[in-house]
Amino acid sequence: LLHELGRILPAGALLTDPADQIIYGYDNSRHRGTAQAVALPQDAQQVVALVRACRVARTPITARGRGTNTTGASVPASGGIVVSFERMSKLVRIDPDNRLAVVEPGLINGDLQRALAPHGFFWAPDPTSADYSTIAGNLACNAGGPRTIKYGACRENVLGLEAVTGTGALVRCGGMTSKGATGYDLTRLLIGSEGTLALITEATLKLTPRPEATASVRALYVDVAGAARAVARVMAQPVVPCALEFMDSVALKLARDGGIELVPAGALLMIEVDGSASALRGALDAVKRAARGDGLVALDEAESEAARASLWAARKALSPQLRKLAPGKINEDVVVPVSRLPELIAGIERIAAQGGIAIVNFGHAGNGNIHVNLLYHPDNEAESASARQALEQVFALVLALDGMLSGEHGIGMEKREFLPRAIAPEALALMRRIKHVFDPEGILNPGKLLPEPAG
Amino acid sequence: LLHELGRILPAGALLTDPADQIIYGYDNSRHRGTAQAVALPQDAQQVVALVRACRVARTPITARGRGTNTTGASVPASGGIVVSFERMSKLVRIDPDNRLAVVEPGLINGDLQRALAPHGFFWAPDPTSADYSTIAGNLACNAGGPRTIKYGACRENVLGLEAVTGTGALVRCGGMTSKGATGYDLTRLLIGSEGTLALITEATLKLTPRPEATASVRALYVDVAGAARAVARVMAQPVVPCALEFMDSVALKLARDGGIELVPAGALLMIEVDGSASALRGALDAVKRAARGDGLVALDEAESEAARASLWAARKALSPQLRKLAPGKINEDVVVPVSRLPELIAGIERIAAQGGIAIVNFGHAGNGNIHVNLLYHPDNEAESASARQALEQVFALVLALDGMLSGEHGIGMEKREFLPRAIAPEALALMRRIKHVFDPEGILNPGKLLPEPAG
Repeated sequence: LLHELGRILPAGALLTDPADQIIYGYDNSRHRGTAQAVALPQDAQQVVALVRACRVARTPITARGRGTNTTGASVPASGGIVVSFERMSKLVRIDPDNRLAVVEPGLINGDLQRALAPHGFFWAPDPTSADYSTIAGNLACNAGGPRTIKYGACRENVLGLEAVTGTGALVRCGGMTSKGATGYDLTRLLIGSEGTLALITEATLKLTPRPEATASVRALYVDVAGAARAVARVMAQPVVPCALEFMDSVALKLARDGGIELVPAGALLMIEVDGSASALRGALDAVKRAARGDGLVALDEAESEAARASLWAARKALSPQLRKLAPGKINEDVVVPVSRLPELIAGIERIAAQGGIAIVNFGHAGNGNIHVNLLYHPDNEAESASARQALEQVFALVLALDGMLSGEHGIGMEKREFLPRAIAPEALALMRRIKHVFDPEGILNPGKLLPEPAG
Repeated sequence: LLHELGRILPAGALLTDPADQIIYGYDNSRHRGTAQAVALPQDAQQVVALVRACRVARTPITARGRGTNTTGASVPASGGIVVSFERMSKLVRIDPDNRLAVVEPGLINGDLQRALAPHGFFWAPDPTSADYSTIAGNLACNAGGPRTIKYGACRENVLGLEAVTGTGALVRCGGMTSKGATGYDLTRLLIGSEGTLALITEATLKLTPRPEATASVRALYVDVAGAARAVARVMAQPVVPCALEFMDSVALKLARDGGIELVPAGALLMIEVDGSASALRGALDAVKRAARGDGLVALDEAESEAARASLWAARKALSPQLRKLAPGKINEDVVVPVSRLPELIAGIERIAAQGGIAIVNFGHAGNGNIHVNLLYHPDNEAESASARQALEQVFALVLALDGMLSGEHGIGMEKREFLPRAIAPEALALMRRIKHVFDPEGILNPGKLLPEPAG
């Protein structure tokens, strides 16, 4: 197979050095794997040829952007070939008249945003990893970010795809228009499929005009229930914020420990609005009105870039502080209906107290999407086991609250064993059969997303 | 089978009278079919049982809302059983805190909108048929309407579905949250599948807060090219209109013939903006600035309900006038990238002139989605043949302009023979295999959407 791949790929595009196998063997999860080789294709035809060769050899293929995934979805867990799209990273075309951009899969999200800015556009998905993660990596797990509340996640911001299935078929789906009722929606089927159905070789992205102005509100509440009631009020009025972020009391304590001045409070909301300069004042007033109410402790607003950055400082200080607190972190991104947020946070506090571990909650409250961080010392076996047990309890709680296991990180290796608790057997059976349609030999990212069949 | 269905369904819920077979045998296309019987299930379990019975008997099932479909998708072309959802039409629940509504499939779109209004919400899809068509019928063809440009079509406004596949499996997909990365996106796969994959028995819909205020602009241009340039300018600035509708010169002439006073012009745009009352003026000014430019003949604006209705009169007068002009009408809804609109309209004018038939174009310019109406006398064989030939030429033109056969009406019986020109064999093969996964016996709406396999 390696000989065949060497023939298919240009010189220097097949890495077999053990050092490369290490570098391409991990992602932002605790998982590792060792590939036989790393392929760096330069165009879709090379991807077609290498998938066909791997199919003949029954060799697993793991697609890889830049490995920022948190669930092990880009780890070559079953060995085989890693296909890294770092040499297919061109911005093919910006088409402002049709509000679209055509990109290769390996383009970095942040590079796209910088290229779009002079044209007055942006692409909506803005994961925290935007400066490092690739467009196709974003698409593979239906990535979102704070802006999703107003502008949607990947699913709402893609017009069409070109992809190579597990049989080596090059498929085009969707198109160049925002509307379409012409056949089954294969585009959305591939988005969020974590490289298990096809390898994306090109994407046509829907662009959004950049707002003229943005303003921020930081609101502190006595407790989570007060903040959650404010979220419901904000979401029930016509001005949709472009961010509605949440931090719990543990997260707030961490921010204060990190030197951020904050009045004592049980929960924080960061609310942003954007739009035309003339409309901004009205929008800001509308969300401030909604943010005010029972349990409000303090409310600050900012319109200038510098003042806004100062309000966001508490949120930005969080990640470094988390690392100081404990070396081990299980970083989940559960999602529940917005009205169930108080029950979710109260339940997680109970689980943390029972298990004797620290859990920090923050995230995208407007979508009910909360990043649950379970902190522990990996060298401490009892603490690691407690964290693992607490995680199971968190998932059970989320499902009891009509939520889902993941809002924007995906399932990968981390959560596949939990999937049968979230998805009933009938739907899971359809997913398995769809997997078989796209990838009859099961060579695309085996061991990810779908659980092992029972028995 | 009829005996078995009689056992499954409540008394009076299985219609076998020839009169009923006629009533449930047509839709808003020229097609007709005759069902063996019409089933009126009252809950999902009855749907499961009747699909299982039909599967055993290898009997076709055609799901039916209210028959407003324009492509024959709800016609029992192969006989069998029509399943009409008129007795599953409850609005199960409005949940304002989570911005969602749970509905049965047969609920009328307009009834939903009226129930939502007091809560301050609406559901985005607003097909012209909204007062007669059902939610699940809308979902089956990914229906849109004027508001799609700002608020999206069905695909962007559904959180989850319950549906019965062709094997009689009751499947739940999606959920109650706006974000999700938990398994393959079966929800979007069912939306737009025209009853060929599953029968929808419940939908969880994403709601949008009603804007406080709306304003309209009517702009007339010397020619289509001038109007198209204005569309591009409107779409390139940050205020997204909630409608951006187009009428060509033939449509304008019809409106004038219908008694609407309009200065002579080659094309008309209706632009609407909505939002908070305080922001409306700024939004209106922004779209007016964008609408002005080379080729503008006249521009009128209106904020009051009555004044807005008067501006929309030209558009409303169109349908009755079309009926006067010719008894036969092929009503297509092609979609092209917005920048290709001038080429589309110019090309259609050429096709109309060559074929000696009248073609009237209007529709949702902001999405590049144009309703192309080919007018002819069905009794005149030569004219009917010309219309048919012109239609083929229109489709060829649309595909050459990187467009799609349908923006919001779907494929049904009308366009299935054209699908292989729009979708390459590899993607079509995947669609056929997905169909087989959901409906291995091919009992769900046979003869629709997917073309007969070649040979």
